[in-house]
Amino acid sequence: MGKNLTKRAEDYSKWYNELVVKADLAENSAVRGCMVIKPYGYAIWEKMQAELDKMFKETGHQNAYFPLFVPKSLFEAEEKNAEGFAKECAVVTHYRLQNDPDNEGKLRVDPEARLEEELVVRPTSEAIIWNTYKGWIQSYRDLPILINQWANVVRWEMRTRLFLRTAEFLWQEGHTAHATEAEAIAETKQMNDVYAKFAENFMAIPVIKGVKTESERFAGAIDTHCIEALMQDGKALQAGTSHFLGQNFAKAFDVKFTNNEGKQDYVWATSWGVSTRLMGALIMTHSDDQGLVLPPNLAPIQVVIVPIYKNDDQFNAITVVVNKIADQLRELNVSVKFDSRTTHRPGAKFAQHELQGIPLRIAIGPKDLENETVELARRDNLTKQTIAIDDITNVIPQLLAQIQEDLYTKALNYRDDHITEVNDFEEFKKVLETKGGFISAHWDGTPETEQKIKELTKATIRCIPNDGIEEEGRCIYTSTNSARRVLFAKAY
Amino acid sequence: MGKNLTKRAEDYSKWYNELVVKADLAENSAVRGCMVIKPYGYAIWEKMQAELDKMFKETGHQNAYFPLFVPKSLFEAEEKNAEGFAKECAVVTHYRLQNDPDNEGKLRVDPEARLEEELVVRPTSEAIIWNTYKGWIQSYRDLPILINQWANVVRWEMRTRLFLRTAEFLWQEGHTAHATEAEAIAETKQMNDVYAKFAENFMAIPVIKGVKTESERFAGAIDTHCIEALMQDGKALQAGTSHFLGQNFAKAFDVKFTNNEGKQDYVWATSWGVSTRLMGALIMTHSDDQGLVLPPNLAPIQVVIVPIYKNDDQFNAITVVVNKIADQLRELNVSVKFDSRTTHRPGAKFAQHELQGIPLRIAIGPKDLENETVELARRDNLTKQTIAIDDITNVIPQLLAQIQEDLYTKALNYRDDHITEVNDFEEFKKVLETKGGFISAHWDGTPETEQKIKELTKATIRCIPNDGIEEEGRCIYTSTNSARRVLFAKAY
Repeated sequence: MGKNLTKRAEDYSKWYNELVVKADLAENSAVRGCMVIKPYGYAIWEKMQAELDKMFKETGHQNAYFPLFVPKSLFEAEEKNAEGFAKECAVVTHYRLQNDPDNEGKLRVDPEARLEEELVVRPTSEAIIWNTYKGWIQSYRDLPILINQWANVVRWEMRTRLFLRTAEFLWQEGHTAHATEAEAIAETKQMNDVYAKFAENFMAIPVIKGVKTESERFAGAIDTHCIEALMQDGKALQAGTSHFLGQNFAKAFDVKFTNNEGKQDYVWATSWGVSTRLMGALIMTHSDDQGLVLPPNLAPIQVVIVPIYKNDDQFNAITVVVNKIADQLRELNVSVKFDSRTTHRPGAKFAQHELQGIPLRIAIGPKDLENETVELARRDNLTKQTIAIDDITNVIPQLLAQIQEDLYTKALNYRDDHITEVNDFEEFKKVLETKGGFISAHWDGTPETEQKIKELTKATIRCIPNDGIEEEGRCIYTSTNSARRVLFAKAY
Repeated sequence: MGKNLTKRAEDYSKWYNELVVKADLAENSAVRGCMVIKPYGYAIWEKMQAELDKMFKETGHQNAYFPLFVPKSLFEAEEKNAEGFAKECAVVTHYRLQNDPDNEGKLRVDPEARLEEELVVRPTSEAIIWNTYKGWIQSYRDLPILINQWANVVRWEMRTRLFLRTAEFLWQEGHTAHATEAEAIAETKQMNDVYAKFAENFMAIPVIKGVKTESERFAGAIDTHCIEALMQDGKALQAGTSHFLGQNFAKAFDVKFTNNEGKQDYVWATSWGVSTRLMGALIMTHSDDQGLVLPPNLAPIQVVIVPIYKNDDQFNAITVVVNKIADQLRELNVSVKFDSRTTHRPGAKFAQHELQGIPLRIAIGPKDLENETVELARRDNLTKQTIAIDDITNVIPQLLAQIQEDLYTKALNYRDDHITEVNDFEEFKKVLETKGGFISAHWDGTPETEQKIKELTKATIRCIPNDGIEEEGRCIYTSTNSARRVLFAKAY
C-alpha cells in the first residue's frame, strides 16, 4: 500500500492528496469542494475535539449552539466582516422543491416558495451570536460570557483540497463578551496560548505565536493572534487564530451594558477557532513516504497486534496470549487493536498499519510463543526490537511517550533549521526558492510593500512573532527603517 | 422564579414554552423556526450525546461526517424519500452576495453566481451517504458498514416549537449497509432497543417499542420501528426511530455487491436517529409547576451547595467545609456546584436551582456548622432532611440513584394508568377527550380508516406494539375483523 504512494520528493502535493485517501482519512464528495470525513479520519478529529473541549472547559468556557443560517440583514450589519465573507457564501433563497412540469420525475425550486429574506449559511457566527448576545447582556453582572460552539461552516472556496481548504468544514468557534478592553485582550491571548499548547502537547507540532498584519487579519477584527506551523515542504500553515474584535460587533448589533459605575458602554469581544484544517497540519508535519505517522496522543489505535500463524492451533494459542496482553495494555489506557482478520496476510496488514500511522505494532508468532517474546516495531522511525512479553506493560507506555517526544523534537529541529534571517531582497527570493521555510526579515510596516512582496514571490507575512526582539533594520524591499523583524513564508 | 411560571393545569403548552426559556435551556433566534441552545440546555444534550455515543460504539459503530448539502439530482434519486422531504427543504441557489446598487450599504444575491445545480440543505442524509457508499462497497467483505453521524439537519417546518419541532435541529443519524435482509432487520431492531434502553436508564422515560403503520413510516423505509413515550398532558411523543430501508436506497444509487456465492445483489440498508427533540420529552415527562426536574443521570449539576451566612467570617467558615464536601463528592463522580454568588440571596438561589431542576440541594449555615449537619433537599419531591456531614458521601450517591429510580417509576405509573383498552368509537372519543394517553384499540389495517380517525379525533396510530398479543376483535371504526390491537394517541 505504502509502496503505491507517490514519494514526497517527487510531488509533495500529490503525495498528500493520495495519502489522505489511501489512509482512509477523507475523500471528495459529490458536492463541489465538500469532503466526506471517513471513520478513521473522524476518529482522529474526535480525539482532537475531546482534548480541546477539555482545555476550553478548564479555562471557564461552556458549549452552546446557534443557528446554521444568518439572515442577510444580520450578515451585512458588521461591514468589514460582511465584505470579507460576502464573496464566498452559500445562500438559501427558497424553502421548497416541487415536481418539475418540464421534466418528469425531477424536482425544481418552487418559485412561489421564495424566502422574504435570504439566509446565508454561516461562514462564521459573529453576526448571529452578537445579535443573540444583545438579549443576554444588560449589566456588567452579565459579563463575561464565555461560550464555545462546535459546528460546521461553509465558505465557497474556488480551489479546494481535502482538510486544508474545503467549502464545508468542521470547527469550533469561541465567542466571548467582556466588560473591559483589557479583559478581552487577555482572553484573546489566553486562547491563542491554549491552541499553542494543544498543537505542541497533542499534535507534536511546534508553533510560532504571533500577531497578523492588517491585511492578514480576520475581517472585522482589531487584532488577530495566531499560531503558525511549518510543513515538511517548507510551506507555513496557519493552525489557529484568536481575534480581539474590540467593540466592532457590539456597535454593529448595539450591544451595550451598564458598567459598575452605572454608565453605558459597548461590550468588548473576542472570537477564536481551529478547524479540521488541523488534520492537514498533522499529516504534513509527521508523515513519510510509507504513509501516515500519528503522534500517540492523537492516534485512535496506539498499538496494533498482528498474529503470524500457519494453522488454527497456532492462531488459537496466539489469541490466548494476545487477549492477555491487550487487556493489560487497556488497563493502562493504551488503545489496542488485535488485527485477527483471516482475509489478509501479515505483510498486507503491516503495510496497511504503516500507511495508517499506528504508532506501535506487535507481531507475534509460534517462535515468539516459545521464547515468550514479541516483535515490537515503531512506525515513526521504522525500527524493530524483540522484547519479553513480561516487559510489555513497562515498555509500551514509555515507548509511546518517547515517540510523542521524538516526533515533536524532529519537527522542532526541522522548523528551527528553516527559519532564516535575511537582509536583502535578492537573498530573500533565493532562500524562498531553494530552502523555503520561515524568513525573518525587516519590513517597512505598510500593506503596499507586503502586497508587492506577495505579488513578486508568493510569500506573505505569517506573523509578527510575540518573542521577536526590538532591532533596528531596513525593509528588505523599500529599505525604509524598521524596528523589528517579521516572519515571511509561502503558506497553505 | 418558579412562582412566575404558568401552572401546567392552566395552560400546559404555555408552561412548556416558558419553562424552556426561564430555565435557560433554549430560546428562539432571529432565524424563523431556528433555536439557540443555551449553555445549560446544551450541557444536558452533551450528556445525552456522550451516553448514546458510548452505546453506539459498544454495538460496533463508528462516527464519520458527510456533507451538509445534497445536490438536487441525488436528493430526488430515491423517489419516496424525495417526495417526503421536498415540501420542506432549504435550498441553496447562489454562492455569492454583492453590493446592492439600489441600496447603499446593503447586499444582494449576485445574479451571476447562480449554482448550476441547486443544493438542498440535508433534511436527512440517506441520499448523500448512499451515493458515497457506492464507492466503498464491492464485495461482501466490505460489509457491514456501521456508521453514525452527529450533525445538524434542516426541515422547513411551518409551525415550530423549541426542541419539539424546529427548522434546524441537532441529531445523530446511523446509516448501515448489510449483505443480507436478516442482518439489516436485526440491526434495525437492535438500534431501537438501544434507544429504549437509553430512554429508560438515562432519561428515566418508559417507552413502548413498536412498528409504525404505513402512513406514519419514514419516507423511503420498508418498516419504521420506534419508541413512543407519554407526556404529562396525555399526549404521546415519538422519541426515536429506526428504519429498515430494504434495498430502496441501494437501488436508487445502484449500490451492488458480490455476495459470498459470487453473485451480484443490492445492499440492504438501515437508518436510525434521535434528536434534540429528546430534550422536549425529558422536560415534559418529569418537570412540575416549580420548574425543571432532571434525572440525576443527565443532570449537568447533580448537587448544588448554597451557603447561608450573615457575615464574612461565617462565609469563610462555611466555604472551608463546603470545599471539603465538594472534593469528596467529586471523587465519587458526583458533579457539584458551590453557588457562592454574593449577588443573590439564598431564597433567590433556591428558586433558580428549583427552576433549573438540580436534583439535590445542600444548604449549610452557622447552625449546621455547629451541629456538623447540612440540610438536604430533593428537587423531585421537594422533601428535606437534615443529615450529618459525615454521612454525606454515603447518603448522596444512594439518594441520586433513588431519585433516578423514583422518577422512572412515577413516569411508568402515569404511563400505565394512561393506556386504556377501548372497544367502540364513542368510548374512543370520550377517553381521548377526558383522559388522553394511549388508547389500545382494534383497527382494520387500512390507511383509509387511520386517516378518517385522524380527521375526526386528531389521534394517530403511534405504533403496533412489539409486545401486543394476537386477539380477535373488530375495528372500532369500521367493525371489520382485526387480529391485534394498536396504540392510538394524540401526539407531539
